[in-house]
Amino acid sequence: MRIVPEFIVHFFIKESDLYKELQSMLGFTPGNITLYESALCHRSNNKNISENNERLEYLGDAILGAVISEFLFIKYPARDEGYLTDMRSKIVNRKNLNQIGLDIGLKLLMKFNEQDIQLRESYIFGNALEALIGAIYIDKGFAKTKTFIRKKILIPFVNMNMLENIEINSKNKLIGWAAKHGKTIEFALLDETGGASKNFLIGVKIDNEIISKSSARTKKEASKLAANEAIKILNII
Amino acid sequence: MRIVPEFIVHFFIKESDLYKELQSMLGFTPGNITLYESALCHRSNNKNISENNERLEYLGDAILGAVISEFLFIKYPARDEGYLTDMRSKIVNRKNLNQIGLDIGLKLLMKFNEQDIQLRESYIFGNALEALIGAIYIDKGFAKTKTFIRKKILIPFVNMNMLENIEINSKNKLIGWAAKHGKTIEFALLDETGGASKNFLIGVKIDNEIISKSSARTKKEASKLAANEAIKILNII
Repeated sequence: MRIVPEFIVHFFIKESDLYKELQSMLGFTPGNITLYESALCHRSNNKNISENNERLEYLGDAILGAVISEFLFIKYPARDEGYLTDMRSKIVNRKNLNQIGLDIGLKLLMKFNEQDIQLRESYIFGNALEALIGAIYIDKGFAKTKTFIRKKILIPFVNMNMLENIEINSKNKLIGWAAKHGKTIEFALLDETGGASKNFLIGVKIDNEIISKSSARTKKEASKLAANEAIKILNII
Repeated sequence: MRIVPEFIVHFFIKESDLYKELQSMLGFTPGNITLYESALCHRSNNKNISENNERLEYLGDAILGAVISEFLFIKYPARDEGYLTDMRSKIVNRKNLNQIGLDIGLKLLMKFNEQDIQLRESYIFGNALEALIGAIYIDKGFAKTKTFIRKKILIPFVNMNMLENIEINSKNKLIGWAAKHGKTIEFALLDETGGASKNFLIGVKIDNEIISKSSARTKKEASKLAANEAIKILNII
């Protein structure tokens, strides 16, 4: 008996098996199988950009973002844009997606070279999941892709109630970011207007430089809005 | 004759006029007019999140990202994911979108309070354009939204050739970012393997801490990949 090392096994999945496995994983019959083969091929196995999954990952990432955005928009009609953005970040974070990629069984179908140094630190199964979404989109269109994401990702793997409870507080997030990067942070009251109908203008100062300003009827709300704005400007995830 | 200050005028567009204006701007007949009214209503005019455009902006931003991603994926079949991501950033950057929002005439249709302090520093027309895309998506679906984005935004306002020429170099972008934030940056050779088929592992060190690593057949390519990765990790736009 010959023992085949695991990192070699991944190169030897037969096309007919892949087809069958995909059919059961996707819940529909793949059309253009080449697209799915690319989606499941990591760059460590093939540097050719038309045959590995990097371009499809780029596309699938954007399609997934759009589908999740709509899903949350409809699910939470009374929630503001900051809440929806936070929830989206929690769903599509790289660690989560990687785990989902593993859970739906992508490891067995993928082609990659385990000797590649980069693999150890990257989320290749989450990236492949995004690439798979890109492939489904090109192969079957937007509606089918939405159905796949809902039925095969959101319903079985995303616990919305749990995610709601770990709601990210934008002000704390910003303070944490500043602490981590050794920066001073201050929520400064810049202006205060109105008699009966008060309005507060709060500025976020980082290392004494005003990064963002927001106004609202309460200092708390204005601080939150200014923190949201600063998070966008500084590209903090 | 009574002189009406400009910031008041925006509150007095008649619904029938809005309908007609929208029809000509969009190139189709709006279904649910309430959605478009929300899309054109800035928070300075209405703090109610179900009546202003913040939720629709969140949605439209994601839909726009997906449509532009697909457009570039198809237009540049031989380009890698880094190039496509750069091009997308150049198209959807806030300043660009704001100008397009102004160019298609959103200022005249929008409701906003010019006395609001925040307006002066924000891209409200670009944000409203995204909200309009969100409204079209909910009202008419994905295919119509794609057509709108292509016909009314990409073709008339986005000069792809010009954007190609201002291609962003990820290594330079990262170096610029480090300089701006007073950080040291180094592209360090961490490992070198192989005889005939060489492989270089390059790490991006910022303030002496390794942020990302990438390997490739040439130092140049490995540096570029590591820079791309660092840009993602640091959320540099």
